[in-house]
Amino acid sequence: MLLIRGGTVVTAETSHRADVLCDDTRRIVAIGPDLEAPSGCDILDAGGLLVMPGGIDPHTHMEMPFMGSIASEDFYTGTSAGVAGGTTTIIDFVIPEPGHSLLGAWKDWRQKAEKSVSDYSFHVAVTHWDEKVHEDMGTLTRDCGVNSFKHFMAYKNALMVDDDVLLRSISRALELGALCNIHAENGDAVAYLQADLLSRGITGPQAHPLSRPPAVEGEAAQRVIAIAGLLGAPIYIVHVSTQEATAAIAAARARGQRVYGEVLAQHLVIDDSVYENPNWLGAAQHVMSPPFRPKHHQKALWAGLASGQLQTTATDHCCFCAGQKEQGLNDFTKIPNGTPGIEDRMSVLWHHGVRTGKLTPQEFVAITSTNTAKIFNIHPRKGSVSVGADADLVLWDPQASRTVSAKTHHQNVDYNIYEGLTLTGLARYTISGGKIVWADNDLRVTRGAGQYVERPCFSPDMQAALHRKETP
Amino acid sequence: MLLIRGGTVVTAETSHRADVLCDDTRRIVAIGPDLEAPSGCDILDAGGLLVMPGGIDPHTHMEMPFMGSIASEDFYTGTSAGVAGGTTTIIDFVIPEPGHSLLGAWKDWRQKAEKSVSDYSFHVAVTHWDEKVHEDMGTLTRDCGVNSFKHFMAYKNALMVDDDVLLRSISRALELGALCNIHAENGDAVAYLQADLLSRGITGPQAHPLSRPPAVEGEAAQRVIAIAGLLGAPIYIVHVSTQEATAAIAAARARGQRVYGEVLAQHLVIDDSVYENPNWLGAAQHVMSPPFRPKHHQKALWAGLASGQLQTTATDHCCFCAGQKEQGLNDFTKIPNGTPGIEDRMSVLWHHGVRTGKLTPQEFVAITSTNTAKIFNIHPRKGSVSVGADADLVLWDPQASRTVSAKTHHQNVDYNIYEGLTLTGLARYTISGGKIVWADNDLRVTRGAGQYVERPCFSPDMQAALHRKETP
Amino acid sequence: MLLIRGGTVVTAETSHRADVLCDDTRRIVAIGPDLEAPSGCDILDAGGLLVMPGGIDPHTHMEMPFMGSIASEDFYTGTSAGVAGGTTTIIDFVIPEPGHSLLGAWKDWRQKAEKSVSDYSFHVAVTHWDEKVHEDMGTLTRDCGVNSFKHFMAYKNALMVDDDVLLRSISRALELGALCNIHAENGDAVAYLQADLLSRGITGPQAHPLSRPPAVEGEAAQRVIAIAGLLGAPIYIVHVSTQEATAAIAAARARGQRVYGEVLAQHLVIDDSVYENPNWLGAAQHVMSPPFRPKHHQKALWAGLASGQLQTTATDHCCFCAGQKEQGLNDFTKIPNGTPGIEDRMSVLWHHGVRTGKLTPQEFVAITSTNTAKIFNIHPRKGSVSVGADADLVLWDPQASRTVSAKTHHQNVDYNIYEGLTLTGLARYTISGGKIVWADNDLRVTRGAGQYVERPCFSPDMQAALHRKETP
Amino acid sequence: MLLIRGGTVVTAETSHRADVLCDDTRRIVAIGPDLEAPSGCDILDAGGLLVMPGGIDPHTHMEMPFMGSIASEDFYTGTSAGVAGGTTTIIDFVIPEPGHSLLGAWKDWRQKAEKSVSDYSFHVAVTHWDEKVHEDMGTLTRDCGVNSFKHFMAYKNALMVDDDVLLRSISRALELGALCNIHAENGDAVAYLQADLLSRGITGPQAHPLSRPPAVEGEAAQRVIAIAGLLGAPIYIVHVSTQEATAAIAAARARGQRVYGEVLAQHLVIDDSVYENPNWLGAAQHVMSPPFRPKHHQKALWAGLASGQLQTTATDHCCFCAGQKEQGLNDFTKIPNGTPGIEDRMSVLWHHGVRTGKLTPQEFVAITSTNTAKIFNIHPRKGSVSVGADADLVLWDPQASRTVSAKTHHQNVDYNIYEGLTLTGLARYTISGGKIVWADNDLRVTRGAGQYVERPCFSPDMQAALHRKETP
Repeated sequence: MLLIRGGTVVTAETSHRADVLCDDTRRIVAIGPDLEAPSGCDILDAGGLLVMPGGIDPHTHMEMPFMGSIASEDFYTGTSAGVAGGTTTIIDFVIPEPGHSLLGAWKDWRQKAEKSVSDYSFHVAVTHWDEKVHEDMGTLTRDCGVNSFKHFMAYKNALMVDDDVLLRSISRALELGALCNIHAENGDAVAYLQADLLSRGITGPQAHPLSRPPAVEGEAAQRVIAIAGLLGAPIYIVHVSTQEATAAIAAARARGQRVYGEVLAQHLVIDDSVYENPNWLGAAQHVMSPPFRPKHHQKALWAGLASGQLQTTATDHCCFCAGQKEQGLNDFTKIPNGTPGIEDRMSVLWHHGVRTGKLTPQEFVAITSTNTAKIFNIHPRKGSVSVGADADLVLWDPQASRTVSAKTHHQNVDYNIYEGLTLTGLARYTISGGKIVWADNDLRVTRGAGQYVERPCFSPDMQAALHRKETP
Repeated sequence: MLLIRGGTVVTAETSHRADVLCDDTRRIVAIGPDLEAPSGCDILDAGGLLVMPGGIDPHTHMEMPFMGSIASEDFYTGTSAGVAGGTTTIIDFVIPEPGHSLLGAWKDWRQKAEKSVSDYSFHVAVTHWDEKVHEDMGTLTRDCGVNSFKHFMAYKNALMVDDDVLLRSISRALELGALCNIHAENGDAVAYLQADLLSRGITGPQAHPLSRPPAVEGEAAQRVIAIAGLLGAPIYIVHVSTQEATAAIAAARARGQRVYGEVLAQHLVIDDSVYENPNWLGAAQHVMSPPFRPKHHQKALWAGLASGQLQTTATDHCCFCAGQKEQGLNDFTKIPNGTPGIEDRMSVLWHHGVRTGKLTPQEFVAITSTNTAKIFNIHPRKGSVSVGADADLVLWDPQASRTVSAKTHHQNVDYNIYEGLTLTGLARYTISGGKIVWADNDLRVTRGAGQYVERPCFSPDMQAALHRKETP
Repeated sequence: MLLIRGGTVVTAETSHRADVLCDDTRRIVAIGPDLEAPSGCDILDAGGLLVMPGGIDPHTHMEMPFMGSIASEDFYTGTSAGVAGGTTTIIDFVIPEPGHSLLGAWKDWRQKAEKSVSDYSFHVAVTHWDEKVHEDMGTLTRDCGVNSFKHFMAYKNALMVDDDVLLRSISRALELGALCNIHAENGDAVAYLQADLLSRGITGPQAHPLSRPPAVEGEAAQRVIAIAGLLGAPIYIVHVSTQEATAAIAAARARGQRVYGEVLAQHLVIDDSVYENPNWLGAAQHVMSPPFRPKHHQKALWAGLASGQLQTTATDHCCFCAGQKEQGLNDFTKIPNGTPGIEDRMSVLWHHGVRTGKLTPQEFVAITSTNTAKIFNIHPRKGSVSVGADADLVLWDPQASRTVSAKTHHQNVDYNIYEGLTLTGLARYTISGGKIVWADNDLRVTRGAGQYVERPCFSPDMQAALHRKETP
Repeated sequence: MLLIRGGTVVTAETSHRADVLCDDTRRIVAIGPDLEAPSGCDILDAGGLLVMPGGIDPHTHMEMPFMGSIASEDFYTGTSAGVAGGTTTIIDFVIPEPGHSLLGAWKDWRQKAEKSVSDYSFHVAVTHWDEKVHEDMGTLTRDCGVNSFKHFMAYKNALMVDDDVLLRSISRALELGALCNIHAENGDAVAYLQADLLSRGITGPQAHPLSRPPAVEGEAAQRVIAIAGLLGAPIYIVHVSTQEATAAIAAARARGQRVYGEVLAQHLVIDDSVYENPNWLGAAQHVMSPPFRPKHHQKALWAGLASGQLQTTATDHCCFCAGQKEQGLNDFTKIPNGTPGIEDRMSVLWHHGVRTGKLTPQEFVAITSTNTAKIFNIHPRKGSVSVGADADLVLWDPQASRTVSAKTHHQNVDYNIYEGLTLTGLARYTISGGKIVWADNDLRVTRGAGQYVERPCFSPDMQAALHRKETP
């Protein structure tokens, strides 16, 4: 058992001084001022620290096969890096190859993830459509604890699905009470622009953002919002990176539509000047999709989070080392897309969000953890500090600083996109399932200690969506 | 002591089966499954009921002197009607006459409110500007538990203040950590249109909405948002009734500005066709400002609440009986403005909001109670079901129906604007300060049992606002 | 020769008293006060009449094969009906079957159109993509007087093209200096909704608007605007019928993009209540795509025209008689889409636009004629009253009224969607190529008198587009 | 008489080769290919030149008394500088002191303007309200050729009027068929911010933009648009300088409201970095209201012009020399507001607008001349190249370049804000009233040759406005 004593509990709702007692069932069993320590209980002094729900990163790609490589971060190293940064749950993506079984892929990923040091769950991607997909969606939701499906509007001739598949899959998910996730970029446009750039001899990483300008994302966001609107289905748009997509989401919500938007910490603070790096690798290390954007988009994203129009933050953590990135040395379209970020997300948001007054501490908790738990229907088990909840906590030091570096980070990748940044606000201790897994810079994880998190369908919002469909 | 047993606790965050124990200090002392009843404890069976935070109505005008009349509802009858509908806290308005002392008026109102049966608090209106107002604002925030000030952009030659006063008062409030409330209608335009209508012989209540068209509200909302934006101050716009003002608020929030919007339950379900009532009194009974609007505005208001761009619901409860309304028999500008509503707000929102899927039950709690408590910085004391919180609760029957009528309501006014409506969802029991004050249609209130609620300055959002001002 | 004496010349620019002299070369040769009549010249008294450029209808489908039928109106009857209503030029559509030759289809249509009584031109549709299409586009622009290409985003498995074709075709057109036209409806969504409605047993014409809700058009408009924006190409969206598409166009223009929008006269005054007609045929006669819309869209369309964000008016004149419409008796998706309208467009716009003050008389000329001539680069030959211009004129009686009826109209179709409407403002005389072809209700047309109008590429706006592409 | 031979006539509508003959009545008497020169006629070779309507600058302040100084440019020097740049007509402002007679002021200004070398007209400002103003507005419109009135929402305690005056004056103007002009900045906010800056010791010109941020203009534009909308009156907003005001205008137009917007050439190309000039005078020379803005506003203004949402360009030409600017050496609020610009407006628009493809040559004519003539109801007398029009022309060399400098300009002021810029596109010849007044860099003006231009009320748009008011 573990008693966290003397801290200030900060939740999405409130902030108050209280002790927190975790027992051996991985749960929180008591919260209150001056709790008495049961005998044999470990005591952790949280004086001066904020006791918050552990972070949830709803968008990671551990050891993902992609563009001919496999992401260097695996579930063991990735979840370890997570807890070092205060993140105690990830939702990764099961991505079947087009034509392959969703259920089969889900089983593969389950196996890969068994080495995780903290809890994990899965969205499952729909990358084609047939009767088997329709059936697998049913099985996954009924029997496998899956309540969300992912769709790519980009990656033509690979993962991309067309509007017809979107209509069928979103409609199917709605009847199952599951939520659809969308990668919103117009894949035809990207492919056209890529070919055009290559044909003009523009082959370096600086071409990457030119092949995926903001309008490509804005268009796709508009489109899938319209499609979901026709069906009366809530949707969740991943890695919103532009003013355009943010505005599309806000406009839909102002019409009464339920649309959720996720922001990557990276997009909040890094802009497209990184692609001007004369060093090929330096630029290539920032190749991800959507790409980094001109600075004014950041303002829209922060405001989207502060106003509640965008609800969650994530990382799309997807690591490729130098040798992997170099696949695209002569052709930017072959650079594996992805950047690391799971370890630093929460510090980036505290430093740039809370310390500047863009966010309150409560909002910080909401967008790093609680909102995600609610949207994906694992709240209050996750994302809360409450009796009965999983004892996944971060003890946050709001004043301490650290300087980010690939030399010292725990991510299994040879660079860090925040290299050299000094961030104030860090995880002093991280607790996963009632155990201290990160203590004052010391990683104390256990391979396989993480558990698979089943997520039930029919969240309150999905229930409301079904009421809405019945209401004339 | 009181043990509420067997209900489903629904908060702004979550929903779960739990018992709730209230002690004699007016507080909640325990929440959990299968609580044991202390000896001598009353037990209330909440089987099949939802145990929610009591409603907070942040906008009432009990026994207010206005337009030559005094509102018929006093603090005793008004708070009684409130608890009959599940509302356990009101925030009323202290309105000094222009030129008079804010502090003096606050003392007057404190005295009037002593007869309240449930808790109450006060916004204080700034209706002119001078050094004494500046000083009184300091005293009220420091010594009197006031953290919000009200401003009227309408009611020319009466309560209206101009942009210069708004700039000074919002700036002053910001430095005190207090929030400004705004009645947003362009008073010059209203006065011009009133005079124009009267000069054309249009004197009946049907002229009322013509003198205050939606643009009059939209303009004023835009203006005060711009003014607050210049100062970096959060603001709270009362009784948002139009698509235009809703859009102005959303646009400001999308720029990163903190603007809150309140909606009256009345505006959500009643439209401007009421002014076509050939019966003079029937129409006059709906004269309030802002007036009822064409139907499409309702869609914007509901979506504003669902999307989180509008945060609270209120009633602007302000009652005038037939004889009072008839002051304006020959001149609509003399009809005392106001409608009743405190007793039915929560049922209206459940029936038209939750049952139609526009809102989840959690969102219902947020917009009837929790958000208001947070914005006015009395959360989690109010607006939550948590250990240590005030034992102000409503035990909600989501399936039971009732038909609204002035014949049976508890409001001290001779009509009900929802007359004849059958609403599903009602307060089966209401608990204020740990006492049952409404039990299955039986009012059990005690005159003077309500307490004045001090509200401290520097809510999390006001603190963040000050951080933002310091951040370059 | 023909001297038009005593009228008021109204152009898109101005209004002034002047005589107009037309010679035997089909041109205007003099304009001025008190022109002397050459000997042998016919004189037409235009006292009390407005002398305006003949209307141009940029969107007609004469004798088009569509959905298993052939439109009943042919080029002879259709252009005759046009001149009876004051329209002297049409731009019809060459629609090759997917996979077939553009050039071949253009030749077919040229032949069909030879019987026209007034001038005509052709947009050519791109309904698939291959090298031959690329090449034909070059030939058509260089050798055939075609400067515009049409694309359908709807009609899945028939005329619809996907985003990839749009990208290729718009890009190709831009390099040729030609303008692309777009039918903006999401064809996947329409097909999905049609199948869904049929599967639920909803088979009548009332299902038609449900299968093509406003969002289906708004989405497609957004999408093609984004695509054209990526390429730096102006585009022209046909039959804009919704607030959503109008807003998308305005937003693009506010970003500096060149997007043109066309409105059908029908959509300006007829709303979706027509589909509630219990008479099957009555409802089916209104089946067209986009369908008629709820009334509030009309306000957006009128404002779009008045503000210059929508530039042209057309009819999509496409006639199917009762027997043809009845193809879809048991399945609304088989009802041939289309409504008549060429004869009444100008009266509808005068009556509902100019007489209500929505439009000035100059704006009426602009949106019925001049803007179209400019956009399709045949101005000032068409769309102007100027020396050297084609003598295509309408002598408009702004005060006279007529009642519309299929019994009296000149359209070769057995109904009129304006049946029974009394419209003020009508063509008293119509002059085509210097000849009077409509005189006080008397049709005096000559089969084959109309000429094919070649339209050169590189309009001023297309030239500016190319400058923009060169400007960093 | 003067025959302009061999040029290309470019109007707002079209472009074609034609000769232009001007007679001694100051009018154009013939236009056509290969005109024969009457005997004794001067012949001007326009080969390679564009023959366009002379520019109209609808916003100048010659010899205006303002902020304790008198603008250094008088009507003689100012109109001379105008013709050197291709501008042949100005509309200046009669600005009565608050409380003084409009008619009296108009007479004063008429007298001052008699020395003008080219034509001029006057807007008359309404700076207070009483019965005399109401009456004078009638007299000015009936008897004095005034059809527009100006209102300042800024300059508190000087020229500023409140919303009540705006309502009365716009309403009065509408009934007279006259158009109201608005300077849209919130004067209370400016005064508040100025006092705040000064109190914090920020006294230099860099404080000027801080005291008038974009929201101050956006707010006022929104407000006056709302007020005009209530009255059903068209309005014209002068010197729109922000994205916010541009968007407000576009939104109003999209609702069907008639709002016109004017842009200053200066705001299109100069940004707010000028206020960072360490040289006090350099910064002070850019003090004008509205101030220069961050660069992204320029994009909105150009797009506003290209899309037709903003219609005219002007200069607000108002010159103060070093000694005058230095009045504000210790207090930026005392720096006389204003910048020069009349001489360079047309070159700036050609160079930055037409050559970059932002505007077509026809649009250039529209926004430098024709639209202004239409809005202020002097078209086609001004702003057109047509028989009967005033022979005010500019012969434009689209290829020639010049470098701007105060050393060589003709403006009576000791600096030029475009100093050092090389602009391509210049007035080779300017013709005013049929006389050559500028020939290849040689100024040939005659003091007093300019004439006062009477502008009648009830333009087509004002007529339409009155129709709209009558239409239910």
